[in-house]
Amino acid sequence: MSLIEQLNWRYATKRMNSTKVPQDKVDKIKEAIRLTPTSFGLQGFKVIEIEDAALRQKIYNEACQQPQILEGSNIFIFAAYKKITAELVDEYMQNTAKTRSIPVESLADFRAAFDGAVAGSEEQNFLWNAKQTYIALGTGLVAAAAEQVDATPMEGFNPAALDEILGLSQQNLGAVSILVLGHRDAVKDKYASAAKVRKSTEDLYMKL
Amino acid sequence: MSLIEQLNWRYATKRMNSTKVPQDKVDKIKEAIRLTPTSFGLQGFKVIEIEDAALRQKIYNEACQQPQILEGSNIFIFAAYKKITAELVDEYMQNTAKTRSIPVESLADFRAAFDGAVAGSEEQNFLWNAKQTYIALGTGLVAAAAEQVDATPMEGFNPAALDEILGLSQQNLGAVSILVLGHRDAVKDKYASAAKVRKSTEDLYMKL
Repeated sequence: MSLIEQLNWRYATKRMNSTKVPQDKVDKIKEAIRLTPTSFGLQGFKVIEIEDAALRQKIYNEACQQPQILEGSNIFIFAAYKKITAELVDEYMQNTAKTRSIPVESLADFRAAFDGAVAGSEEQNFLWNAKQTYIALGTGLVAAAAEQVDATPMEGFNPAALDEILGLSQQNLGAVSILVLGHRDAVKDKYASAAKVRKSTEDLYMKL
Repeated sequence: MSLIEQLNWRYATKRMNSTKVPQDKVDKIKEAIRLTPTSFGLQGFKVIEIEDAALRQKIYNEACQQPQILEGSNIFIFAAYKKITAELVDEYMQNTAKTRSIPVESLADFRAAFDGAVAGSEEQNFLWNAKQTYIALGTGLVAAAAEQVDATPMEGFNPAALDEILGLSQQNLGAVSILVLGHRDAVKDKYASAAKVRKSTEDLYMKL
């Protein structure tokens, strides 16, 4: 199946059938998310896997009781760092130096590029990091489709309640989106057989 | 090449060699972007292809003179709608009804879900649409890698200047990001051979 066929196959699954996604497929989707591009490569977020059943129920209650949260196989929360601290940037520099076997001092100019972000407000930092999680979400959705795994991206939840339930605020994190992996219930989900609605190429693109 | 191999192959290309990307590859990447998931499927943005050489030069000047803008093959600007107008939602409902061969009246409940967005401020609407462009950007970056086409995503530009140059404000649009497609210049670009830096799975993921 080509990428285009995979993208046509996928849809924001509304009902899932509670079967498990094989771990090797979950691992590939997780690896794709790990490799996602982000601005400056900072990856200013965490991805939280929900394994606890009671926690999943609480998330369900704060996410408009969307059935996929209970019927899905795997639940991931994308949580962006609220403040880009000097410590986060330092960790990134250390990781870069180690990965490329270069002295961290040689990254001084690159490190300086983050000074503006570190000096920015929490609101600015969080928004920037939150935007990057959408690239990761997109990568995860494509990766799921490539593995023929159904997925539902969700913004419809109470972020403050999720931050509280997951203890995110104390960790300088805020919930941005939820990604549910699972398998469609083609009987219960009327959208499983509905034609995909997209703007035409002529409507979406503009040439200048 | 698997998706994981493609993601490892790609990187934010810093220097390109001015060769053209074959049109069939560009078309596949454009089609993937068209099929990208977005919240509620609204696709609240336009993608602007820059064909005019003088315009490209102006964009270059407002985008920190990043060389890929001149050396790349294709330049796309993701521009989000500033206000989600009733007209935009109506168009989406008409497209949905037509695509699925159902009466537009049957979409009344779905239409009502947009009332909050339509009633929201321009700032809220633009931010929401802008976030969705990042999913599309992610899809485009993965699609480029799948076609072995190099790509550079950019946020480093003067958005107000780009809006002015491209006449976006009068069209209820605001520039969010730039996507350059092209081919890496492996000699000039030292990052072409640099190891990819990513957080480890243990650092990125947290289990609860």
